[in-house]
Formats: sequence, structure tokens, C-alpha cells
Amino acid sequence: MNGAESIVKSLTAAGIDRCFANPGTSEMHFLAALDRVGGIDCSLCLFEGVVTGAADGYARMAGKPALTLLHCGPGLANGLANLHNAKRARTPMLNIVGDHARDHVRFNTPLTSDVVNIARPFSDWVRKIDRPEDIARDVSEAIAASSGPKGGIATLVLPTDLAWGPGPAPLSSAPQVPGLDPVADEVIAEAAAIIERGEPVLIFATGPALSEAGTRALGRLASLAHVEYLAPVNGPRYDRGAGRVDIARIPYDPGLARARIGHIKHILLVGTDEPASFFAYPDTPGSVVPEGCTLHRFSEAGMDAVAGLEALADRLGTGATAYRVTERIETARPSGAITPTSLAAAIAATLPEHAIICDEGLTQGREVMPATTHGPPHSWVQITGGAIGNGLPLALGAAMGARDRRVVSVQADGSGLFTLQALWSQAREGLDVTTVILANQSYEILKGEMANIGVPTPGPLAQDMMSLQNPAIDWLALSKGFGVPAARAEDAETLMQLLEQSYATPGPFLIEARIG
Amino acid sequence: MNGAESIVKSLTAAGIDRCFANPGTSEMHFLAALDRVGGIDCSLCLFEGVVTGAADGYARMAGKPALTLLHCGPGLANGLANLHNAKRARTPMLNIVGDHARDHVRFNTPLTSDVVNIARPFSDWVRKIDRPEDIARDVSEAIAASSGPKGGIATLVLPTDLAWGPGPAPLSSAPQVPGLDPVADEVIAEAAAIIERGEPVLIFATGPALSEAGTRALGRLASLAHVEYLAPVNGPRYDRGAGRVDIARIPYDPGLARARIGHIKHILLVGTDEPASFFAYPDTPGSVVPEGCTLHRFSEAGMDAVAGLEALADRLGTGATAYRVTERIETARPSGAITPTSLAAAIAATLPEHAIICDEGLTQGREVMPATTHGPPHSWVQITGGAIGNGLPLALGAAMGARDRRVVSVQADGSGLFTLQALWSQAREGLDVTTVILANQSYEILKGEMANIGVPTPGPLAQDMMSLQNPAIDWLALSKGFGVPAARAEDAETLMQLLEQSYATPGPFLIEARIG
Repeated sequence: MNGAESIVKSLTAAGIDRCFANPGTSEMHFLAALDRVGGIDCSLCLFEGVVTGAADGYARMAGKPALTLLHCGPGLANGLANLHNAKRARTPMLNIVGDHARDHVRFNTPLTSDVVNIARPFSDWVRKIDRPEDIARDVSEAIAASSGPKGGIATLVLPTDLAWGPGPAPLSSAPQVPGLDPVADEVIAEAAAIIERGEPVLIFATGPALSEAGTRALGRLASLAHVEYLAPVNGPRYDRGAGRVDIARIPYDPGLARARIGHIKHILLVGTDEPASFFAYPDTPGSVVPEGCTLHRFSEAGMDAVAGLEALADRLGTGATAYRVTERIETARPSGAITPTSLAAAIAATLPEHAIICDEGLTQGREVMPATTHGPPHSWVQITGGAIGNGLPLALGAAMGARDRRVVSVQADGSGLFTLQALWSQAREGLDVTTVILANQSYEILKGEMANIGVPTPGPLAQDMMSLQNPAIDWLALSKGFGVPAARAEDAETLMQLLEQSYATPGPFLIEARIG
Repeated sequence: MNGAESIVKSLTAAGIDRCFANPGTSEMHFLAALDRVGGIDCSLCLFEGVVTGAADGYARMAGKPALTLLHCGPGLANGLANLHNAKRARTPMLNIVGDHARDHVRFNTPLTSDVVNIARPFSDWVRKIDRPEDIARDVSEAIAASSGPKGGIATLVLPTDLAWGPGPAPLSSAPQVPGLDPVADEVIAEAAAIIERGEPVLIFATGPALSEAGTRALGRLASLAHVEYLAPVNGPRYDRGAGRVDIARIPYDPGLARARIGHIKHILLVGTDEPASFFAYPDTPGSVVPEGCTLHRFSEAGMDAVAGLEALADRLGTGATAYRVTERIETARPSGAITPTSLAAAIAATLPEHAIICDEGLTQGREVMPATTHGPPHSWVQITGGAIGNGLPLALGAAMGARDRRVVSVQADGSGLFTLQALWSQAREGLDVTTVILANQSYEILKGEMANIGVPTPGPLAQDMMSLQNPAIDWLALSKGFGVPAARAEDAETLMQLLEQSYATPGPFLIEARIG
């Protein structure tokens, strides 16, 4: 048994059964081991940003880490932006990055790079295996670092000679992983005391607090008239729709965010930082917290926020079912030109039960979340770290992690072009993904930002940098090129007809929705 | 004058006039400054790997650094793989990476990242501007680090509040940059003494030694019967063809490389490391240097190798014109199926004068270089760091850096898919780039590598990871999607007809060459 086979057996024993890969020469022994050992299915992606984005989507839906297999420092580098998103989502993920044989590094051949330091800014745990006798320990620690309720991004660098050399006895079961830390009783008591003052309180919550159990606890707390709750703009996953407790996002626009929470006197921070504007602007405070409002840290990431919120709700005497669940309200079918409003209505009016909405809609897609609040029960995953190019890979991975559910991938055109190669893997795996490209043919978000910084009329160079015309992007051709059938919608009726046709047809489909 | 305007004025004073960009919110003031100040043209790229690859190609042809404009840590991360290639090419490049305002970092908003440490493994020089009073110094040092004969990859991180805040007086001219260090007289004398022994000598040379002046000096030395020269597999630029002194690359295959230089007793290393196999393989030495052969370091990168080689040739008494220039030999027009041989002949038979061949052909393209040796004078640029996805962006940048020359972009299909968004910028800028996709629909290079590691018959999972079929990639559709007209060739006659048609037509064109 060589090192690669030992590692694959350990991963399998720990329950890892899915890999996303773009391998190269230094990963050949690992590939051969995947074949020989069995138990881990592998999906080929044409670019490493697709690999890491897909692993993120998989883990958010399947609730366990996927493995990625990446080629040397530059292969890892191509996956970093979506590792950034995954890290912000606190997604469990285990990256294996092949590297040169240990005694080959001294030749400084072209692909030589400092893999560990490339991984570090985007990993919660990183290690390069140094010696054969360290393989067992390092693999065990890597699995532990990526798995369990506290899991995160673990990056294990595997020199190719340790893959082909003799391997240790593999793990026979998953290594023990730490559970979540409890929220301390005194913190819960303090939060209760704050709420009992009767002043307006906002619970600002993310992570596990967005789960069904978490939102029920939040809903119980909001049965108190002066308590409300919001999520940040970038929560990793929401389970929402009819029968669930809804949670809204704080507005992205800092002016709207300030207006929304201007009356709040206390903010309880649950697994997140204080509400702030995404970017800074001249002569504007970065925080959107109202003056005189106090911040209280309720829980950090890695803590059992759900149990903490439940204990808080108990302590305040709210009934165990005092939360309000969302009722089902059918959305009227829109007609006419495709606008952000009619687009959102078209998605809401046709959404299948238990769909997964994957959101990188940005400017043109912001109305989809409120529009689908009263839709059938569904999950919502989205870009979490602002590193655009997350959506299409995330949809790929989410579909792999929940193969019986339709994924509706709401994708801005500019950011969709960063990692469009994900479409090919969607076709290859025959996944039920309906991609809706919000084709406004511009980096619309930047036009707003230009105005925000005080340049209401950008010059010709800046305008050119925000336009995706000249030439126009033909999404139907791009989709066909990657083997995904596609059609164009220029009005809401056609959009809904294409959505419904796609939902009724197995496999991926792409709709270029021309925003009027 | 704000900070961004001051910086743009300084860059303009230093002669920088070309920027490749994928900007975001934190770069809006810089964009506005490019408009207000003028003097720097800007090309939009749809992905940052295109930005950095294009800047590399531009500098290799124009001989001066291009500016890149990138958005925060994740935007930089997307450009790192092609920064790796550029660093290996010792390309001068100046990256400006926008970052959050200094007092915004504490909010840890989604895009917050450690930009300096993300840049470090792929930069020769990196700095984040800390204070307004440092802008002038830091910009001057960044320009100096990227420019001149010793230039390299300089990355300057610009917090957005320093872009919008008051700026210092800009530079009035380019900062002084250090020249190349001379090769010491005693090193030259020692090299001469080695050559005078009469044993077989290989001069293994890269960098400026590949220039016309460098190859003439090498050619003079090779007029001695026991002296020969080779380049590594990854030289940054060759000027070759009829009337130039040719220099061949050492074979990529380590077995062929060992055979090629097996008789050599001394190797003079000129700006490169000892010849070694690209990857390590089990039970095989990494070096390809024959036993008993000694290595002599003649010059390092940053030294004036050309003057050193000329001095050596003088000292050995070789005539000033003792080099042999390549004669023009027409290539017979091939026919029939497209194979690596007929493909190379088709390119050689039709190559226009002063074309630029951009090579990321990998397995299927290895015969193009020998086949074009006796072609018309042309330049050759290629992937230098093994980070695939270099070719299409490099072709884009090379065409921008030499707008009067036709670029022939010889591109393997698998690696072309990493950064295919470059096609759009080729169309947008109306560049004379003819892309030839070597469509064998597989990661062919990995099949060879699987055999090299001792797995002659890969299992089904490994085979699946090396196939680009299921579904087949439709390059004509992808090219159309990005606005570049395209056609398919399934035989050598059609390939030549399409090449000639493209050379006669301004603007980009893509040929999907189906390797039979």
C-alpha cells in the first residue's frame, strides 16, 4: 500500500465520498489510488475555481466536507477566490494539493512554488507532509480540521514521493472532532437582561442560527414586540419558504441599512461582526450601527448559537412554539419586460418544492429573496465572501450534494463569466440545474459604486470598464459550447415558460434573461 | 489632486501607458483618475487570470511593464497563476491592487483579506501603502522594482481611502533603476579555460541570452566544434527564423533530454538552473545532467549575460560574425489528417513574416518549434511556469504590445479552457490574433504522465479525469460566445486555408483543429 492509497483509505473511513478535481502530474498516484481503493466519486472540473466553489456548494447542502484535488501552487492559486468564499461561509472542506517530490524542489523547475504560504491566507488549517512517518498524523489532523461542527478549510500539501512511497496503516474510523462550544450562562443571562429592559433590540445572526432550528429560536424571541432579527448580506444557507420561520438580510445599501435599523438600541451579535457597509465610502462611517446603540457579543463562530438562542428564549418565557411560520402565498405571474421585479416574480411564481436557489444575482437579483419568502419550502445558498465567480460552481456542488432537488442558479452575467466552465461539469454530471443569467451586459454594480464615490458621470475610460458590450456576450453560444442547452427570454412570459420547461426536464438548462 | 491622480501622473511620467484591468468598487477612484489624467490606455478583461497573462505578453513584446488593476485579495488571487508564469519569465509588471479603506478593515466585511501575504509568493516586490505621506516613496519604489533591465513583479496595495484622499506631488520622470550586473572577469576567464580543455561543453542559457544579440554570441561560441547550446523548455522569448541564430529547447521528456546531452562534460549555466526533469518520477533521478559532467555557474538572472557571452567569445578568439544564421527553407504543404506533424507543417508553411507565435500547445504542439526553425523571421513567446491557462491571455497581451504583427496562438484545448475569457478582449480590441486550438479532447499530457509513474492502464476514474469528452467541448460555440469568429479544420488542407484566410483578415479568428 503506497502513501496515496493509505490516505484514500483514511478519507473513506472518515466518511468522505465525494471529490472535485483538476489533477496534474503530481496527483497521478492519488488518482490511481482513488481507482484502486474505491469509495470516493470524483468530478472533473475544467478550472480550479470551479473545483473549490463546487466543494463549497456540496458541503453546504450535504453537511459534510468534500475533498478537492488540486495541482501544485498555481492550481491551488486558481481555486483561492472560491476558498475565500467558502472560508467566509465557514464551509468544511479538505483540499489535497499535490506538490513536487521533496528532493525535486531543489531543482527549482518551472512549477516550483511555496504551496503552504499560498494556501495560508485562505485556509483555517494548512500543512505540508514532511516525512512518511507523519502521513498518518497529518491526514488525521487534516480530516479533523475540516470535519465536524467546527470544521473549516483544511489544506494538506502532499509531495508526490510521499504519495508513491510506502504508506502507513490507514485510519479505521473518523478522527474525533471537537463539538461546538456552549454559549456561557452568564452571556445568556446578560442578553436576557438587555432584552428585558424593553428597548428595541436587533439580533444580528448568521451561520447555524440561519438553520430551521435557529430561525425558530429567533422567531420565539421576536414574539416579544421590541425584538427583531436580521441576517448579514452573506449568510451561507437559509432554509425558508412556507412552513419555515423567515429571516431577512440587512440591506446591502448602507443608507437603506441605516434606515432599517435606525431605531435599534441594542444589537446582539450571533456569530457575526457588527453591521457595516460592504465597502467604505468617502465621508461616510463604515458602521451602519445607529448612534447610541450598544453592541453585545452573544456568540462567536464555533459556538452552539442555536442552543444559546433557545436557552435565551426559554429564559425570557417565550413559548416553545411562539415563532411565526411563513404562510404560502402564490405569486401572481408577471408579464412584459424583464426587470429585477418581474424576474423575481417569475422565479417565485414557478419555484418547485424543495428547490435550492443559488444566488449570485447581485444588483439585478436582489428582489428574488423577498419575492420568494412565501414560496414553497426551499433552500437558499449564496456568495458569502464577495469574491465573484462563486455562483455557477456553487450551483454545481449544491446539486451534487442534493441530487433529488432542482437548483435554480440566479447568476449576474459579469460574475458568471469568471467561472463559466462550471456549466460543463453540470452537463457531465447530468445535474438538475437551471441557470438564469441576468444579462444586463454591464458591471451594473460598479455604476452604482461610481456614483457612491462621488463620480455621477464616469468618463469614457471608466464607462468602458463597466460595459460588457462590444462585443456582446452570447450566453446561448457559451452554454452550447459547454454542452448545456440554452434559450433566451426577453419577456417575463417566456422566462416562466422556459423555467417550467426546464423544471420538467432532467439535466441542466440555461436561460439568458435579457434585463430590459 | 487626490492620491489616485497623483499615482496615475507618476506612472505616466515613468512611461507606463498600458493597463489591463478587472476593477471593482475599491478601484473606482483609480479608474476616475485614469480618465482625468489621461495617458494610460486600459483594456478590460473578464477575469483576472486574463489581466495578468495579458500584462505578461505585453511586456515580453513591448519590453516595458504594463500596469494591472485588480480588486482586493480575491481579485489578485484569480491572477496569481499567470503571475507565477510571468515571474518565471522575469517579466516586468506593476500590479495595483485596491483594498479596503484603512479604517474599514476592522469591520472584517466579506471581502477583507490579507492582500500583502496573498501577493508575496508571486511577487518580487510587494508593499501596502500605509500612510498618505508614503504614497510618493512607495509608488516610486514600485515603479523601480517593476522597470528596467532587472525589473520583475511589483505589487502595490492601495487602500481606497489613500486613493480618494489628498495626493502628493507626482514624480516628474521615471525613477532611477539599476542596470544589469556585469559577469565578473574571473568567471569569464574560468569559462574560457573550461572550453579550452576541448571536452564537450553545453551552454544552457535563458533570459536575455535568447535575444538576437545573445544567440549571436552563443552562435560564435558554437563555431568551436566541441561547444553547443540549448535553452530550457520554458524560455520567455525567442526571436528566430531566417536570418537569426537559432536556439533549440532541451527536450521536455527527461529520457530524451538525457540522451541529447549524454556526451556533455561541462555545462555553463547562463541565467538558469541545472537541466532537470519538469516533474520527478519514481526511481529516476531528477537531474538530467550526465554522470561525470560538471556544472559551472556563468551568470544569474539580473546579470548582463549577453555582454558576458560576447566577452567569452572574444576571449576564445571566435570571429565577431562566426555565428551561423538560419537559412530560409520553405516547408512543404502537408495534407490529410491533422497530426502533431502535419499541424506543425501547416503552421510553418503559412507563417507570415514577423508573426509572433504564442505557444501553449503542450503535447500536440511540440513539433511546431522545430518545424518553424527555417520559417520567416518571427518571435516566439510561451508558457514559462507550467501554470496552464497562460496561452490565450499571453497572445492577447503580445498582440497589444506589437499591434502591427500577427499573433499565432497555438493552444492546447484543456489548458485553453482555463482562461478562455481572453478571446473576448481579443475581439474587443480588434487584435490580429489567430488562435489554433489543438483539439484532442483530452488532458493528453496526463496520459503520458500516468504511464511515466508506472500505471500504463489507468482505471475508469483516472481515465474519466483525463477526458474532455462527455460532453465534447464545442470551441466554435465558445468562440462565438465571446465574439471571435471561428471555424473547424479536420484536415491539414482546411487548416492551411483557414490560417491564410485569417492572416489576410484583420481581427481575431479561432480555428478548432481536430487532431485525428
